[in-house]
Amino acid sequence: MAPAVLLLSGGLDSTTLLAYALDEGFDVHAITFRYGQRHATEIDAARRVAKHFGVRDHVVVDIDLRTFGGSALTSDTLAVPKDRDVADLEHGIPITYVPARNTIFLSFALAWAEVLNARDIFIGVNALDYSGYPDCRPEYIAAYERMANFATRGGVEGTNPIHIRTPLIDLTKAQIIALGLSLDVDYSITQSCYDPDATSAACGHCDACLLRLKGFAEAGSRDPAPYAAGAR
Amino acid sequence: MAPAVLLLSGGLDSTTLLAYALDEGFDVHAITFRYGQRHATEIDAARRVAKHFGVRDHVVVDIDLRTFGGSALTSDTLAVPKDRDVADLEHGIPITYVPARNTIFLSFALAWAEVLNARDIFIGVNALDYSGYPDCRPEYIAAYERMANFATRGGVEGTNPIHIRTPLIDLTKAQIIALGLSLDVDYSITQSCYDPDATSAACGHCDACLLRLKGFAEAGSRDPAPYAAGAR
Repeated sequence: MAPAVLLLSGGLDSTTLLAYALDEGFDVHAITFRYGQRHATEIDAARRVAKHFGVRDHVVVDIDLRTFGGSALTSDTLAVPKDRDVADLEHGIPITYVPARNTIFLSFALAWAEVLNARDIFIGVNALDYSGYPDCRPEYIAAYERMANFATRGGVEGTNPIHIRTPLIDLTKAQIIALGLSLDVDYSITQSCYDPDATSAACGHCDACLLRLKGFAEAGSRDPAPYAAGAR
Repeated sequence: MAPAVLLLSGGLDSTTLLAYALDEGFDVHAITFRYGQRHATEIDAARRVAKHFGVRDHVVVDIDLRTFGGSALTSDTLAVPKDRDVADLEHGIPITYVPARNTIFLSFALAWAEVLNARDIFIGVNALDYSGYPDCRPEYIAAYERMANFATRGGVEGTNPIHIRTPLIDLTKAQIIALGLSLDVDYSITQSCYDPDATSAACGHCDACLLRLKGFAEAGSRDPAPYAAGAR
């Protein structure tokens, strides 16, 4: 089985991505980041998901993006927006955008891929739901892949070219959920919420919850993950 | 003054780079990494250098590249090569190469640049001394810069394009030293050695020391940094 590095947050997208990569026959090395996110319980979700799927190995890397600030996701003082109109989520860069986050995440994945001699790096970016995130677009991914093949020995020599794989990039949230359900993903163990309560129950009102609930509704299914009382 | 982010290791190259950037009139925000390097005393050198030059601010970011391994610089068991023929240093990728290190470093710098609205990121890569490092070549830097302008809002919108600045890239070590001396750089406070002793004195025999000593010799100067007794 070919080794692959996969960015795993424990959310809906990256868990579906993991099921897809395993179904494709990859030997998955999962990587999760404790980056100062306020919803750090997603790391518990990532551990649950990695264990559930029995991946080859799973590392949690500590990086403190609070050093630079600039995002509600890494701030105790900037509020996570609630109950925005879902149609608005498709426009502009929200305050929950973390500067250069995907670039940093992919760069750690690239380091691990180089050590493992892995050619494939999986990332669950999705261009449709957040067209405003610059680092979720196909053009960005293509430019990253091109850079990665100048950065590594295997890329330069052509012996081990890097391929950034984004199978979810053109899917709607409903299509991602349908893909996951077809692969028997148990979404009850995943966590997407930016602002969960002390029991890790989802708030139901942040952008991530709104998009997730809309996706399940459009997929004709019910989200089995725990939500706070009255959250939906 | 325009803000700039500058990668500072406290070594000869990045200290010269800092003097250059300040001379060019930039308001420098310096960033240093504690990445699990065995020569962690270079962080003290970076702090000395940042303080000496009075930069706007200086952050030390913790990232543990020992998680992935693959380099003598982040290993307690892989030995740092000593007394290699300097001519050999120009060929092949040495065991001291850290996979994807510059890509990771630049990605943190990019995050900070995005928050600061800085357009310029300075990195002291140098293509001549280590032609074997894939991530020190002009093609790599150009690909990184291109990717960065797909990754960030200011790059995509064209309001704040990112420029990766590498003024040392075509210089020999002797030329870098000559540049630094012309800018009154005090090299006694810098540290390049991969394997310094407990007092931070340089070993005089690792690749970094050999290239540095050769550079000073060719520049017709004497390295004022401390070396272990008998190291040169």
